[in-house]
Amino acid sequence: MKSDLECLYCLLKQGLNTARMATQDRTLQREILNRISRLVPEADLSLTPAELSRKVYEIVSQVTGVSDPFRQAKEQSNREALSLLPRLEKLVAASEDRLSTALHLAVAGNIIDIGIGHAYDLSKDVIAILNTPFAVDDSADFKKEARAGRRLLYVGDNAGEIVFDRVLVQELVRAALQVIFAVKGGPVINDATMEDAEKAGIAKLVPTITTGAADIGVNLGHVSAEFLSALESADVVLAKGHGNFETLSGQPYNIYFLLKAKCEVVSRELGVKIGDIVFKKKINSLPFGK
Amino acid sequence: MKSDLECLYCLLKQGLNTARMATQDRTLQREILNRISRLVPEADLSLTPAELSRKVYEIVSQVTGVSDPFRQAKEQSNREALSLLPRLEKLVAASEDRLSTALHLAVAGNIIDIGIGHAYDLSKDVIAILNTPFAVDDSADFKKEARAGRRLLYVGDNAGEIVFDRVLVQELVRAALQVIFAVKGGPVINDATMEDAEKAGIAKLVPTITTGAADIGVNLGHVSAEFLSALESADVVLAKGHGNFETLSGQPYNIYFLLKAKCEVVSRELGVKIGDIVFKKKINSLPFGK
Repeated sequence: MKSDLECLYCLLKQGLNTARMATQDRTLQREILNRISRLVPEADLSLTPAELSRKVYEIVSQVTGVSDPFRQAKEQSNREALSLLPRLEKLVAASEDRLSTALHLAVAGNIIDIGIGHAYDLSKDVIAILNTPFAVDDSADFKKEARAGRRLLYVGDNAGEIVFDRVLVQELVRAALQVIFAVKGGPVINDATMEDAEKAGIAKLVPTITTGAADIGVNLGHVSAEFLSALESADVVLAKGHGNFETLSGQPYNIYFLLKAKCEVVSRELGVKIGDIVFKKKINSLPFGK
Repeated sequence: MKSDLECLYCLLKQGLNTARMATQDRTLQREILNRISRLVPEADLSLTPAELSRKVYEIVSQVTGVSDPFRQAKEQSNREALSLLPRLEKLVAASEDRLSTALHLAVAGNIIDIGIGHAYDLSKDVIAILNTPFAVDDSADFKKEARAGRRLLYVGDNAGEIVFDRVLVQELVRAALQVIFAVKGGPVINDATMEDAEKAGIAKLVPTITTGAADIGVNLGHVSAEFLSALESADVVLAKGHGNFETLSGQPYNIYFLLKAKCEVVSRELGVKIGDIVFKKKINSLPFGK
C-alpha cells in the first residue's frame, strides 16, 4: 500500500518515540526531530509507510550511535509475554474453537508495538481482545485452507508478540500443517529477530528462518533466496502486523493479514476503524501491483 | 506552559487537519505540510503550544486563501449542540447537584474540538462524561468561591461547546454571580467568536466581550483593554479547554481550568492521563512566571 499525508507527521512521531528509547539527551532528541523534519518535503508517498519511515530509524542510530534502541524493551516484552504463556495455553485448551481463540490471542499480541508509541496494558488488553470480533473476518476461508499437510509461512512481527504467535503456531502444528516461521534478519524497531524466536520457543517448534533483511515489514527487493523460496512455495501465508500488511498487501501471494489497525492510514486502507482487529485475506491479482 | 517535543509533530497534524478543512486539493495539502515541516528546526519550545501552532493556521490561510477554514464546521457544531440544549437543561434541572452536573456538561462540550482532529460522537460522549469523575477536582473550592455577587469571567473555547457553556452560565447566573463571558476577537481554528455567542444565546444572557485578539487561547500581549480589565477585576476566572490552559496557566490570576486532556503534553503538565477530564484551580505565585 502507498503512504498518505498522515505518514508525514507520523515520521516525527516515530522519531520522537525511538529517540526517547535511544537517549535521554533532549538536545539529541531535538536534533533527531529536526533532521526528520527535513525529510518531509522530499518524502515520496508512493512508497509504503514502512519504506518511508525506514530513514527515521537510520537517523536515530546516526545521531545517537545506538543501533538497536529497542533492545531492552524487546527483552522486557518477551519476559512479560512468556509470563503469560501458561495462561494463554490454558485459554486455548479450554476453548470450544481452539483455532479462533489462538487467532485472537495472536492479534492480542500485536498490541505490543512500542515503535509508534501506543500505550498498552497487556493482560487487560488480552482479555478485551478475546471478546472482540474481527472487523474483517476471513477465518472461515482460512479454516478451509489450513488443512493437514499444507505449507504455511508465518511472517512474524514484534518481540513479545512472538510468544502469542507461538500459541497459534502450536495450533497450526496440531492441525498438521507444515509451518515455517520467519523473523527479521536484523534489528529494526521492536521487530522479532532469531534471538526472539529462540527465547519464545518458536525456533524449537518449527523451522525458523529470517527474511534476510532488517526492513520494516518485507521488502522483496532485499530478502534472502531462502525467504523468497519459502514465500513462493507456501500454500498459505499468515502475516502479522502493520509493517507486513503495508509491504505485502500489494503482492501476488495467498496472504492472510492478522493485525490490529493502529493508525488512520492503515485503517482507511482496510476499511475499518482505528483499534479494530482484522483477519483479512488479500490476494492482489496484479503481479507487484499497488 | 511551555511546549514539548510532541508539539513538533502536532504542528503537522494540526496542519493536515486544517488543510483538509480548507481545501480538497491534495497538492495544496502537501504544500502546507512541507511549509510547516520547515518551521520545525526553528520552533521555540519555550513558547506555549498555542503560540507555537499559530503559524500553522497562518500557513493554511496563505496557501489556500481561506481565512476561516472551520466556518462550516463551527456552524454545524452550533446546530448539533443547540439541538441537544433542551436535553442538557433537563439533565441539570433533574440533578441533585445542579452545579456539578452543569460543570460536567460544560466539559462534555469540550469534546467538540475539530482543530486537532479528534473524533467524537456528541450525545454518546455527553452521557459518558456525565458519569466520569474529574481526575483533578477542585469543585469544592469553586463552590466556596462561586457565591452571590462575585464577579466571574468565563473564558470560552470552541463553537458548539459554547452551547454547553450556556448551561453552566445559566447555573452561575441562577446562583447570582456576575458573569462576563469572553469569546475570541476573530476566527481562529474552531474557537467561538461573538457570532457563536449570539447563536448560542449567551450574549443575551450575560455581558459578552471578546479577547480583542484572534489568538489560540489568550495572549495577554494582544488582548483589548476591555478584556484585560475584566480579567483583572474578576474574583474568579473559569477558563475552558486546551488553548486557554496552555496560555493562562502561568498567569497570576485566580483561574479554574475546565477541560478534557487531549494530548500527551497537556496531560503531563496536568498530571493526568489523555482523555481525563479536569477541573483544576491553578494560581501561579510568580507574576508572569512559567
